[in-house]
Amino acid sequence: MFKQLGVIGCGLMGGSFALALKRAGLVKWVVGYSKSPSTTERAKKLGVIDVAAESALLAVSGSDLVLLAVPVSATEATFKAIRHLGDSKTLFMDVGSTKRDVVDAARRVLKDKIRNFVPAHPIAGKEVAGVEHADAQLYQGRQVILTPLQQTDPEQVQRATDVWSAIGCQVLRMTPENHDAAFAAVSHLPHALAFAYFNAMVSQPAGREFLSLAGPGFRDFTRIAASDPTVWRDILMSNREEVLKQSQRFRHALDAFEHVLKSGNLEALEDLIRHASTARASWQMSSRPGSQR
Amino acid sequence: MFKQLGVIGCGLMGGSFALALKRAGLVKWVVGYSKSPSTTERAKKLGVIDVAAESALLAVSGSDLVLLAVPVSATEATFKAIRHLGDSKTLFMDVGSTKRDVVDAARRVLKDKIRNFVPAHPIAGKEVAGVEHADAQLYQGRQVILTPLQQTDPEQVQRATDVWSAIGCQVLRMTPENHDAAFAAVSHLPHALAFAYFNAMVSQPAGREFLSLAGPGFRDFTRIAASDPTVWRDILMSNREEVLKQSQRFRHALDAFEHVLKSGNLEALEDLIRHASTARASWQMSSRPGSQR
Repeated sequence: MFKQLGVIGCGLMGGSFALALKRAGLVKWVVGYSKSPSTTERAKKLGVIDVAAESALLAVSGSDLVLLAVPVSATEATFKAIRHLGDSKTLFMDVGSTKRDVVDAARRVLKDKIRNFVPAHPIAGKEVAGVEHADAQLYQGRQVILTPLQQTDPEQVQRATDVWSAIGCQVLRMTPENHDAAFAAVSHLPHALAFAYFNAMVSQPAGREFLSLAGPGFRDFTRIAASDPTVWRDILMSNREEVLKQSQRFRHALDAFEHVLKSGNLEALEDLIRHASTARASWQMSSRPGSQR
Repeated sequence: MFKQLGVIGCGLMGGSFALALKRAGLVKWVVGYSKSPSTTERAKKLGVIDVAAESALLAVSGSDLVLLAVPVSATEATFKAIRHLGDSKTLFMDVGSTKRDVVDAARRVLKDKIRNFVPAHPIAGKEVAGVEHADAQLYQGRQVILTPLQQTDPEQVQRATDVWSAIGCQVLRMTPENHDAAFAAVSHLPHALAFAYFNAMVSQPAGREFLSLAGPGFRDFTRIAASDPTVWRDILMSNREEVLKQSQRFRHALDAFEHVLKSGNLEALEDLIRHASTARASWQMSSRPGSQR
């Protein structure tokens, strides 16, 4: 399907994409670049990429598919580094967890080449970062959100849809604005709450002792609190308006709990819990058969 | 070890205790009572209990070990129903997730029989309630906290320690006050936060649509939001002072996140996240080898 994949950012997401495309026979070879030369070398040693490029520009040169898998905050600088290359048919995609900022950066830098850029957000990840955790199955059975713009070439949107489908994703389309509002609610706020909860927990005098008593509920509730600090710094900051809106909603819901606890209203407390419990029990994660997680 | 186990409340916790003791050969037979006769019958049909008792008092009669596995709010009424029975050597235990209220009820009702009561809290559970989910392995590899009082007979504390150890638990001792403070932090507040988060999520206009996009992080973060409403109503209400204290600490930690997001201070945001992420990554659940969950 593709001759050469250029991966900029050979970490968990970029590395897993390369492995998945190789395994599916969708690409002949992979050229990779990471800011840190040792990461690029490791990716080559692990067989995640075939050729280590010395710059982002060299990873784009000759590629008919380019994946930007850099921290969201590095997107604009990466666009600037590569804007002069790519023939008129090269498909560019990213994997960022926020989309408005990526689209804004693309508009500023790519100018007319923006028609070849299809912003993408695969709903997949691990709490461990780095190319050594790259996994050909990471995207299998997961959703991927594409947020094409009016100027995006429909043919490129179709190619993007095909490649994600071919590695096992369910492909959805949304506007960048709706995407960011939705993910503030279902992902970014939960991360902020889990981080804040863990900080509150360990900063109290008996915190360490308490931790030794925590069980499976705690383990699952706080799993996302172990997420990568630089990745989540960028996500929370670049989507902060929506995150703060969701935080406000959450505070109102927490107010309601505190209010019924203070008033001792057992029935009202049960109603609040039942509302959440019923809704959660009927929820199921959207995924295809064959999902690994 | 025991001749007859009397179980009051044949649900998930009581039923699992009965199955675990039977499997370990620690008890000859089990007499069970539940408020709902259909539950008692179901427990008998499933082989969780051997004899269905028609009252709590009849479940205690002839038992040398009695487990109260009723909602925390029903503890005092249950003590009242059984206070006239049990010979001088019968060991009484409960499995409540809060301990100060249970101990207070025991003091009020049991009088001098309180010496045979060893308050217990096994750190185990499932999001599904009911005797049909009872599981002989539920307590395997888990911690159990005993909160004996000054008046508790040390011999009974030893017997309690032995029986929980024999079914695979690691036995710890704490005061009821320390227990309730610790579990407000590691269990009760996370439940309240997960309930509140889910309510905030589903009560917004696009909530249902957002839910369809949620992934594995959301799934784990909200797992405890599906917990049983009557069980958790009782736990949160009976430990509300400690829960409200923890909620206050959490709000301060959330304030800090909102503050750095509003100020746009990327470095301070990364510091907050790194603090949580490092602490969570180094945490491991205390459990014995052979733990099933």
